[in-house]
Amino acid sequence: MNLNERLMAKPGTTPDLTRLNPGATPGVKGKKAAAGLLKRNIDRLNELQYLLYAENKHAVLVVLQAMDAAGKDGTIRHVMAGLNPQGCSVTPFKVPSDEERDHDFLWRIHKAAPRIGEFGIFNRSHYEDVLVVRVHSLVPPEVWSKRYEQINAFEKLLADNGVTILKFFLHISKEEQKRRFRKRLEDPRKHWKLSQKDFDERAFWEDYMQAYTEALARCSTPWAPWYIIPSDRKWYRNLAVSQIIVEVLEQLDMQFPPPGMDVSRFRLE
Amino acid sequence: MNLNERLMAKPGTTPDLTRLNPGATPGVKGKKAAAGLLKRNIDRLNELQYLLYAENKHAVLVVLQAMDAAGKDGTIRHVMAGLNPQGCSVTPFKVPSDEERDHDFLWRIHKAAPRIGEFGIFNRSHYEDVLVVRVHSLVPPEVWSKRYEQINAFEKLLADNGVTILKFFLHISKEEQKRRFRKRLEDPRKHWKLSQKDFDERAFWEDYMQAYTEALARCSTPWAPWYIIPSDRKWYRNLAVSQIIVEVLEQLDMQFPPPGMDVSRFRLE
Repeated sequence: MNLNERLMAKPGTTPDLTRLNPGATPGVKGKKAAAGLLKRNIDRLNELQYLLYAENKHAVLVVLQAMDAAGKDGTIRHVMAGLNPQGCSVTPFKVPSDEERDHDFLWRIHKAAPRIGEFGIFNRSHYEDVLVVRVHSLVPPEVWSKRYEQINAFEKLLADNGVTILKFFLHISKEEQKRRFRKRLEDPRKHWKLSQKDFDERAFWEDYMQAYTEALARCSTPWAPWYIIPSDRKWYRNLAVSQIIVEVLEQLDMQFPPPGMDVSRFRLE
Repeated sequence: MNLNERLMAKPGTTPDLTRLNPGATPGVKGKKAAAGLLKRNIDRLNELQYLLYAENKHAVLVVLQAMDAAGKDGTIRHVMAGLNPQGCSVTPFKVPSDEERDHDFLWRIHKAAPRIGEFGIFNRSHYEDVLVVRVHSLVPPEVWSKRYEQINAFEKLLADNGVTILKFFLHISKEEQKRRFRKRLEDPRKHWKLSQKDFDERAFWEDYMQAYTEALARCSTPWAPWYIIPSDRKWYRNLAVSQIIVEVLEQLDMQFPPPGMDVSRFRLE
């Protein structure tokens, strides 16, 4: 299938988000086939997680970024569901606290970096600092414009120290977002999740796409690539994310540690 | 089934661990029936976790304590597997770091307390400070003997602030531990997990049982009960832990938040 290569934002190029169809399903025959493949990937991810822990040499960092309702939570629920919660931490990044704001923008991110042997999942991330922060001018351009290089250097530090980084942009259309918001409006059990503010952000859609384009163009690197996941169809989104993680982790060629010690000399009484 | 009442160490009483059979399977017909019930409980736990998050009123803290190889990791893998990793954190407590040792013994524990709306799972816990620490005299008796009350007060603080605490002692026999250690010796893929030190701890089995007995007697409280789980049979252990968590969470009678805001006035364009 090789979705790893197919959906990667090629380092050094600028993606044209207006020409990438969020409803596309490259490399997959249909919903039914995808269900079987997703199940297989979830089982495989569980095995790979165990190996990651046993080998104790790599960590994995999955970054999820997207417009509201594109499915960050859903991806975690459906793709990461099979992971052992021991050895997997999910960090949602919300509006920074006063303490966090008193440090550089990568301070709180660094604290949440996964330890060797473990999975870390970021629900939103340091990229908010070149997305919402840029769209709403929360800091001046001379501040946010320096962040792309700061991010690349930070991610290089992690990668050099054993962290395999996979960044997913869940790409939905403005129309699909509206459909999903409307569905939530129709379900009283989902009303607690809603806010007028989220709806109002739709007015900035083009600004966000521009900010995403620059983040994808400048921060998709060989050591921390971005993937652009067509996400209007949830089944495709889940399959694609799971498939890419499996493909990349398989390439690490992880091994159980050799039985270095001579257990035959152990005494068990 | 009501394993909640059946396996609870009654507050104010002293359990006799020598008379509680670790191979027993109270309340369950057999392995086959247990498999179906476990699956049902795992699905139900997933629903309850969503409700816990939506209601945002309670947190859940599951504490796992046991002798080596009794199945702390296995319980997490098999019972908590269905939980959404977002909203569930597992904290393993190992030998304290220098920084942790420079604080009182509950400092690192408090830092790891689950936030409202979430599940926290402790793999080992503050109880190590009245177990291994007592057995090996790592601090003098006048220090560890005060800890039972300190623990009760700390757990009361959490409970008063919305944390539902469930503490599980996975009770295995010394013979069953030996069988499991031997099995690991026979599997080269498990050798990285083994250490002679763990085997040597078997010499202190009686001391540990005495220390556990006192912890169970003094720290099983109405606000943070201990459960003694017969754990020689893994299928029973997994079922019992899942069953008790479900029973207790059902009693919280959690509700989706009322659609407080008038979403009919929201504008979606």
